Amino acid sequence: MEQGKLFVLSGPSGAGKGTICKEIVRREKIGLSVSMTTRAPRGEEKHGKSYYFVSEEEFQKNIDEGGFLEYAKIYGHSYGTPKKLVLGQLSKGKDIILEIEMQGAFQVKNVYPEGILIFVLPPSLAELRKRLIARGTEDEEDILIRQQATLNEIALIHDYDYYVINDELEQAVDKVRSIIKAEHSKVDKNVDRLIRKYEEEL
Amino acid sequence: MEQGKLFVLSGPSGAGKGTICKEIVRREKIGLSVSMTTRAPRGEEKHGKSYYFVSEEEFQKNIDEGGFLEYAKIYGHSYGTPKKLVLGQLSKGKDIILEIEMQGAFQVKNVYPEGILIFVLPPSLAELRKRLIARGTEDEEDILIRQQATLNEIALIHDYDYYVINDELEQAVDKVRSIIKAEHSKVDKNVDRLIRKYEEEL
Repeated sequence: MEQGKLFVLSGPSGAGKGTICKEIVRREKIGLSVSMTTRAPRGEEKHGKSYYFVSEEEFQKNIDEGGFLEYAKIYGHSYGTPKKLVLGQLSKGKDIILEIEMQGAFQVKNVYPEGILIFVLPPSLAELRKRLIARGTEDEEDILIRQQATLNEIALIHDYDYYVINDELEQAVDKVRSIIKAEHSKVDKNVDRLIRKYEEEL
Repeated sequence: MEQGKLFVLSGPSGAGKGTICKEIVRREKIGLSVSMTTRAPRGEEKHGKSYYFVSEEEFQKNIDEGGFLEYAKIYGHSYGTPKKLVLGQLSKGKDIILEIEMQGAFQVKNVYPEGILIFVLPPSLAELRKRLIARGTEDEEDILIRQQATLNEIALIHDYDYYVINDELEQAVDKVRSIIKAEHSKVDKNVDRLIRKYEEEL
């Protein structure tokens, strides 16, 4: 059975990786990894669909057992990607997509080097600024700090496999879909089975 | 200026790489490399469009000057890919596609390691057999020899970057198009210019 592939969408926040990820899941045969978190469910969020909502103790137990592909603490709450679930799907031949912060992306690549890292870029710092203002959660100084932080993050692009500029959503989605398709056309260990198929014919 | 990319379609003869190549050239912004040959023009063939038709002396002069990306003698005639023409187009940012025999593909990779090798496979040896019978140029023994030769060639797939099974033409073309698009999304030396663009904004 051909091994599924793990695609990691990451990049500076505000670049729109979440929107791209949703579109990919809607259009491709690809599973979305569900994270584990210690924070409480909000609104319509469902256990096992939006997140796995667990206690601090259970989360810590998972860390101790090496059960995460990556995890992080954000604003006092812990978030992590359950390793067993993802690897289980991959071994069944299913592709998985993961949308996470950059620190998490590097953790994934460490634990699972076959993972394919895709860097999602905002079209420009000016556009990022516009998006942040539209959100209305940050003041002028915050925005400048965020722009500088984004520049620092963009400098880490060299550790990624691909990049996609989220200028026009449809084009960005199309690029990610091409990356998924091309990755499945790569000559890798899967071709040995292919060669055997031809050999068995003669 | 972003460097163009060189895509090399190759693989066992009878796999249909020529048909795929034509479709790609028709649909993508990509140049088709025109070969130099010592054979005489046939039918509608035009100098500079189908081939560059040259004398034995001129061809040999090109070899001596290291002027070919690859060259080979087939049934007494010489064929070669002019290096200067291809590299000139690439440096202008233009993608180039090249459809050549496997030996030629390896020569290209040697001279220009950035070239992207795509292996075109027949859907099966049985299908290859059908195509050869349909051509009507080979007898039963020839066909068996060709099938064995194809198997030997398929074993060389590991030296390629991608593979495409030419089962259904439309799908095969779509895969090659995805490969072209994905290659342009790869993090390579081109991203340095991209990073500078963001830096200049702040």
